[in-house]
Amino acid sequence: MSEYCLQIAGLKRYLPYVDINDELAYASFVVISDTELVSTVAPLLAERIGECEALVTAEAKGIALAYEISRLLGLKEFIVARKSVKSYMKQPLDVPVKSITTSTVQHLFLDGCDVEKIKGRKVCLLDDVVSTGDSLAAMEQLVSQAGAIVTKKAAILAEGEAAERDDLIFLQKLPLFRKNPDGSYQEI
Amino acid sequence: MSEYCLQIAGLKRYLPYVDINDELAYASFVVISDTELVSTVAPLLAERIGECEALVTAEAKGIALAYEISRLLGLKEFIVARKSVKSYMKQPLDVPVKSITTSTVQHLFLDGCDVEKIKGRKVCLLDDVVSTGDSLAAMEQLVSQAGAIVTKKAAILAEGEAAERDDLIFLQKLPLFRKNPDGSYQEI
Repeated sequence: MSEYCLQIAGLKRYLPYVDINDELAYASFVVISDTELVSTVAPLLAERIGECEALVTAEAKGIALAYEISRLLGLKEFIVARKSVKSYMKQPLDVPVKSITTSTVQHLFLDGCDVEKIKGRKVCLLDDVVSTGDSLAAMEQLVSQAGAIVTKKAAILAEGEAAERDDLIFLQKLPLFRKNPDGSYQEI
Repeated sequence: MSEYCLQIAGLKRYLPYVDINDELAYASFVVISDTELVSTVAPLLAERIGECEALVTAEAKGIALAYEISRLLGLKEFIVARKSVKSYMKQPLDVPVKSITTSTVQHLFLDGCDVEKIKGRKVCLLDDVVSTGDSLAAMEQLVSQAGAIVTKKAAILAEGEAAERDDLIFLQKLPLFRKNPDGSYQEI
């Protein structure tokens, strides 16, 4: 068995195991371009999120989800924290972030125009999966620097201990896995 | 005047000028998180694109658009060429690409799983704006290496000479601009 079968909102997805180290692995949930899954879970998450003044996600996995939820909530746009500085950006804010799916330290940048849009506003942070919480914390630091007030945090899945958080709106828990000596994986 | 007023599908967007050099500038069209614009133009583009077996876009600006068009066309997913290798990727393909909005040479990567999905299939390449055509050419090279057949290429806007292309489905032309000695910008 080299994949974990995730069942969510009536859909099944087979997530390949990715080793974190010799003992621990996670199941890779790639929602970035999964139209069927995004369009199925977005209404469920949108209902749980309810009212918010702005929706903020990080490039790139959360973009389709943020688009669909903003559309369902009647928001004209959402905000994307980007992973590199683009030539269109004016006075971007910058915070470092370490992610479970990327081996190096990345940065999150917020365009100065987006800073103006969320300053003083109640925002909901959105991600596909919350795991260690590092990405979400970086996003929170970024939008807080921009003067926004984070009132909600939402994700499709809460991985491992993130499922114990009481400040997170999520649809389902995603387990972490122990790697057995025989190469099989066991849910923790 | 420091912005160009784009009127498209009944919407107005004010695009800041970004200098390419001392004489030339482009108007920066940032559609990545513009829910209203994406949800307005996607049905128009989807109708023009019509039937296709797979929709391929490049991270990150085209993601929301690709999501919405795939949803409207009844496709269960779309394919995203990514700008860095992720830990979930297996045997990714890699091509270099130079973009007008980014100062350094980037790379486009396609996950081995996505290669399998588009091999031998008729795909439509999708971007927000086609300008020099370098990004689109890189995407075409990438999916061709994957064994896909590019039968359609689509974008919301065709910038400058791209509007003369007869192989591109697009809704509207976006001009390039000459920078005058007094700092004003003039449509070319």
